Amino acid sequence: MTQPNPPLNVDALFLGPKAENRDFYKDMMAAAVDAHLFWRRDYFPQDSPEVDPNEAAQPDFTATLAGTQEVLRKLSATLRDQSVPWFSPRYLGHMDADTLMVANVAYLMTMLYNPNNVAHEASPATTQFELEAGQDLCRLFGYDTRRSWGHLTSGGHVANYEGMWVARNLATMPAAIAAHPNAQDLVQGLSDYARRMMPAARLLDLTDTLKGRGIFTEVRDLSARGVGADPDEIGKLLLPVSKHYSWEKAADVLGIGQANIVPIPVDHQCRMEIDALTQTVTDLMDAQTPILAVIAVIGSTEEGAVDPLAEIVALRQRMEAERGQSFYIHADAAFGGYIAAALVDDDGQYVPYDLLDSRYQGLGVFPVAGTVWPKREVYDAYRALGQVDSITCDPHKMGYVPYPAGGVCMKDRRILDLISYEAAYLAEDLSIEPDLSGKIQLGNAILEGSKAGAAASAVWAAHQVAPLNIAGYGQILGRSLGAAGWFYRQLATAPDFEVGGRRFSVRPFMDPDLNIVDFSFLEAGDASLDSHNRLNERMYELSSYFKGRTYDHPFNTSQTALTYDGYGDAPRPLVQQRGLSGDEWDRVHSITLLCSTVMTVVLKDSDRLQRYWDDLMGTWQGYLTQIVEEDLLAGTGTSTTTAP
Amino acid sequence: MTQPNPPLNVDALFLGPKAENRDFYKDMMAAAVDAHLFWRRDYFPQDSPEVDPNEAAQPDFTATLAGTQEVLRKLSATLRDQSVPWFSPRYLGHMDADTLMVANVAYLMTMLYNPNNVAHEASPATTQFELEAGQDLCRLFGYDTRRSWGHLTSGGHVANYEGMWVARNLATMPAAIAAHPNAQDLVQGLSDYARRMMPAARLLDLTDTLKGRGIFTEVRDLSARGVGADPDEIGKLLLPVSKHYSWEKAADVLGIGQANIVPIPVDHQCRMEIDALTQTVTDLMDAQTPILAVIAVIGSTEEGAVDPLAEIVALRQRMEAERGQSFYIHADAAFGGYIAAALVDDDGQYVPYDLLDSRYQGLGVFPVAGTVWPKREVYDAYRALGQVDSITCDPHKMGYVPYPAGGVCMKDRRILDLISYEAAYLAEDLSIEPDLSGKIQLGNAILEGSKAGAAASAVWAAHQVAPLNIAGYGQILGRSLGAAGWFYRQLATAPDFEVGGRRFSVRPFMDPDLNIVDFSFLEAGDASLDSHNRLNERMYELSSYFKGRTYDHPFNTSQTALTYDGYGDAPRPLVQQRGLSGDEWDRVHSITLLCSTVMTVVLKDSDRLQRYWDDLMGTWQGYLTQIVEEDLLAGTGTSTTTAP
Repeated sequence: MTQPNPPLNVDALFLGPKAENRDFYKDMMAAAVDAHLFWRRDYFPQDSPEVDPNEAAQPDFTATLAGTQEVLRKLSATLRDQSVPWFSPRYLGHMDADTLMVANVAYLMTMLYNPNNVAHEASPATTQFELEAGQDLCRLFGYDTRRSWGHLTSGGHVANYEGMWVARNLATMPAAIAAHPNAQDLVQGLSDYARRMMPAARLLDLTDTLKGRGIFTEVRDLSARGVGADPDEIGKLLLPVSKHYSWEKAADVLGIGQANIVPIPVDHQCRMEIDALTQTVTDLMDAQTPILAVIAVIGSTEEGAVDPLAEIVALRQRMEAERGQSFYIHADAAFGGYIAAALVDDDGQYVPYDLLDSRYQGLGVFPVAGTVWPKREVYDAYRALGQVDSITCDPHKMGYVPYPAGGVCMKDRRILDLISYEAAYLAEDLSIEPDLSGKIQLGNAILEGSKAGAAASAVWAAHQVAPLNIAGYGQILGRSLGAAGWFYRQLATAPDFEVGGRRFSVRPFMDPDLNIVDFSFLEAGDASLDSHNRLNERMYELSSYFKGRTYDHPFNTSQTALTYDGYGDAPRPLVQQRGLSGDEWDRVHSITLLCSTVMTVVLKDSDRLQRYWDDLMGTWQGYLTQIVEEDLLAGTGTSTTTAP
Repeated sequence: MTQPNPPLNVDALFLGPKAENRDFYKDMMAAAVDAHLFWRRDYFPQDSPEVDPNEAAQPDFTATLAGTQEVLRKLSATLRDQSVPWFSPRYLGHMDADTLMVANVAYLMTMLYNPNNVAHEASPATTQFELEAGQDLCRLFGYDTRRSWGHLTSGGHVANYEGMWVARNLATMPAAIAAHPNAQDLVQGLSDYARRMMPAARLLDLTDTLKGRGIFTEVRDLSARGVGADPDEIGKLLLPVSKHYSWEKAADVLGIGQANIVPIPVDHQCRMEIDALTQTVTDLMDAQTPILAVIAVIGSTEEGAVDPLAEIVALRQRMEAERGQSFYIHADAAFGGYIAAALVDDDGQYVPYDLLDSRYQGLGVFPVAGTVWPKREVYDAYRALGQVDSITCDPHKMGYVPYPAGGVCMKDRRILDLISYEAAYLAEDLSIEPDLSGKIQLGNAILEGSKAGAAASAVWAAHQVAPLNIAGYGQILGRSLGAAGWFYRQLATAPDFEVGGRRFSVRPFMDPDLNIVDFSFLEAGDASLDSHNRLNERMYELSSYFKGRTYDHPFNTSQTALTYDGYGDAPRPLVQQRGLSGDEWDRVHSITLLCSTVMTVVLKDSDRLQRYWDDLMGTWQGYLTQIVEEDLLAGTGTSTTTAP
């Protein structure tokens, strides 16, 4: 993880929107295949081939090859017809963009060997890569890699489940300890509630004691793992009210139940309100209601909002100091996790906030002029990651590697023993750093079983080429964050559109914490939130696969609707700022926005930006013209005020 | 799903152990990459490239390419050094073999577009492929595809979890119905237990009624999904005693608890004992203890044993008829599922047992002379699959496609609404067959979220080339099953090995149901099970990555230990048959075996088989010689009786 010399050139990391690096890419792909072919041929060269030229000339043989070719031709045609051009700056929608060449080639190269990371025996190389990649992430977040644990999952859902799985089983250990005759002395003198709200580290120390007494597995059999998860005992799961559906699913899958979710309001930046959280935590503790975990989101799906993690951690410290009561914190950094790399220097340390800007300038991290990032509170949230108990972080999102690659990190790997199978004391096997893999069977320590080793290679190779620091991934992220900030500023000052005597404005909705920009169109003089929403739904249709092939669209984006159900009254001031009344919000309680995740890395200098913007304004002018024409044809005057 | 004409040539489906089809394979891979490159270039051709020749010549640009190349070189070297030669017939170990060319190319081709099957919008092509592949599996198992549901998962663990997730939520619906004031009339007059043990179909009919009354979501909120899973109410999970660890994990993850697992003894063929199951079910029903589900394994991991599913289904029918009480059945056919394709004809119907043999002979499905497959009870078990509630079936096992590709099927897709998010009535959206995909967001209907569309392409393309019937996949499976039967028969009659005055025999352990052959070595005159086990552990070390690179080994296999804990006394007669005493079994209660999953498709004619066998006997002679020499060097005389 040292700084490359000379520094990385981001344009040389991706195939590029015009396949600019096609010769290199093709060479690498072909070399990957060739190496594998020779590997097969060189395995016991004396073995005779299974197909001789005579067989290969038989009609059934050639027909089978032809059949394969025909299916592949059809597949290729379908993909070209129905895929979304993530690779292009003309796509600013979901969390997708071009992926790193090295990750794609590494995936292909490894897939040919088809290792299975369920067990070291089935993946001697790629189990090691997975563990190294996991350690890279732990280090990035400020965990002590001698004590922490990270690995890859098929995606963010599974990573979230795994975080909640360990949290749930840990939460049931105090009762299990109290129930075991040879363990109950360890929690003697503590009330049910006090032992239940013990800090995680202290509880894990107790598991060491149980191991020392040789009764760990007996006690563990009395935890949720053994006797199931009683939803009345399991505690409350505190989430931002905008809760991602993966968390609702987690509460369902793990037997916790939706009823145990306590939604915490968000502020007008869509971040969890720390005052509300403080009140809820205090109320629950006063009522002696257990807290299973607080989930902080680092980069919400719809807004890229970063919850105030530093304050959440501080709240926990205060509660520990004042009441001796703690709570588990999981950071859902599925989207935002990798962005930490833009804050960390070659030595793995976070650069002090005040020095960041000069560091960025020295390396040219933000080629887009005028980029100011991060906000102080966002920086503080990232710095607090090292103090949370577990973290979801998906390489297939801001890590620019292909699916499937999620990831999860845990601060204290002793927690693994609460979910381990076959091997009783798995954490011990992982305790000596240089020999991390040993003979580890990952399937015993994780939620999944069989798993593509190729995904581990892709992430590992990406980290090798672009280390998780400012000089590595930071340069990639700088392109994205710079373009996002620029897009926000352009939207904030964009001239109005005049179409057939009607006038439309476009404006951003909130100042983004990361690289997701929400914005909307509004007709001048239109006071109706309903018609605002219809206009933006229609703009979305024209910018998405709902209207023809995305491949034909000059601009593609996604949409979101902020509703009262999902956000409470947080959007109200933003609706007003957008020029609509608070009454309208109270009436409709839902605002439709266009939602652009600006992951593209090619909008990098003022010429390109200007050209891109001019083109985009023309595209939008065209879309609005089409809408106005549709209104005229439908005889509805202004669709935006009269459509059903 | 019709019969190809001319029939498939299996040798033309795989790259081959000597990369025999390398020209074709390389062409297809290169074409896949080329098509994608041009797709990028053709998207808004007027857009200028982002990299100009000047930039590409800069030192940081070339250095970044060189860095990428260096990482890939290192990766390639590591893979070649540390991968397992699945592709070769010299590997007969875990559930791995060569994978279909079409699946590999389809995966690569699709990965370049990087679709995400979480939502149709992010994967218009591959969501459809996933649903079609799921339907293929449903059809294979005899489900009515107008009512069933199948999709792909990252692997078998997740598929098992998903099966138990729906079973668990369904199991809590009766109490939810009874608890809702406007629903409780639906279960009036039924005792708590009677409503709890209602057949799944009847319960799902009730959910239709709830939907009609507009209270489905309210009632659902009272099920486990809403209020959590109370382990005291959830019921018992009945599993073969040899329970795969994924089921222990499922009971943990889903909040059911290990304590709710009831292990059912297996017989000496390692199949669930139907009498024991009957007794347990009867006892539980007599005691009014709920049954969450019975898990039947179709192809156990260590033995390929097929549980007597037909009898399990018949037991359920009897209980329904006699007592009005039913139970949920999940078939864990993660390994064995695809083998159903060897029983199904072009019309999708199971070929009657008595006609199978002539059908096989007509098509030359079993090129290995003397193949007799399947046993009648195995056939009956497969035919019963259409009557179970859900099925795990992994394409990345007997489907010969690369990781990650698991799969799960559900008989009645209405069950999906018990786990669906966002959309309330998901099953309805799926009810019109030809428009199966519609605008479906898979993430709302499954356990996972983001998912590689490339995996769906790989499975879909494999099914296109080799339909799931005798003429398609059946021909691939015929190679594997034929070779497995031959291997078993060879082992049963193999001559002894004479080494340095000592004499060793090799024998199979049980007649396999499918294609997994367990066997062991034993020294003549050795009456000790301990030394038998040590000998076989040593043989395993010499045949695995534990001793050097597998690439250098002329034969690779895996091992298993059948223990009293995991199997009860089922191995006792087999131990005796192996020439060891029942007392030895009672003393040691564990027997170590070598375990070969014979998935290779290249052992297909008598010449090859004879050559392979001669070579293998020579290899084993060499391994035994090494062991005898080690004993002499250690001065231990016979290692097998005196080693620690």
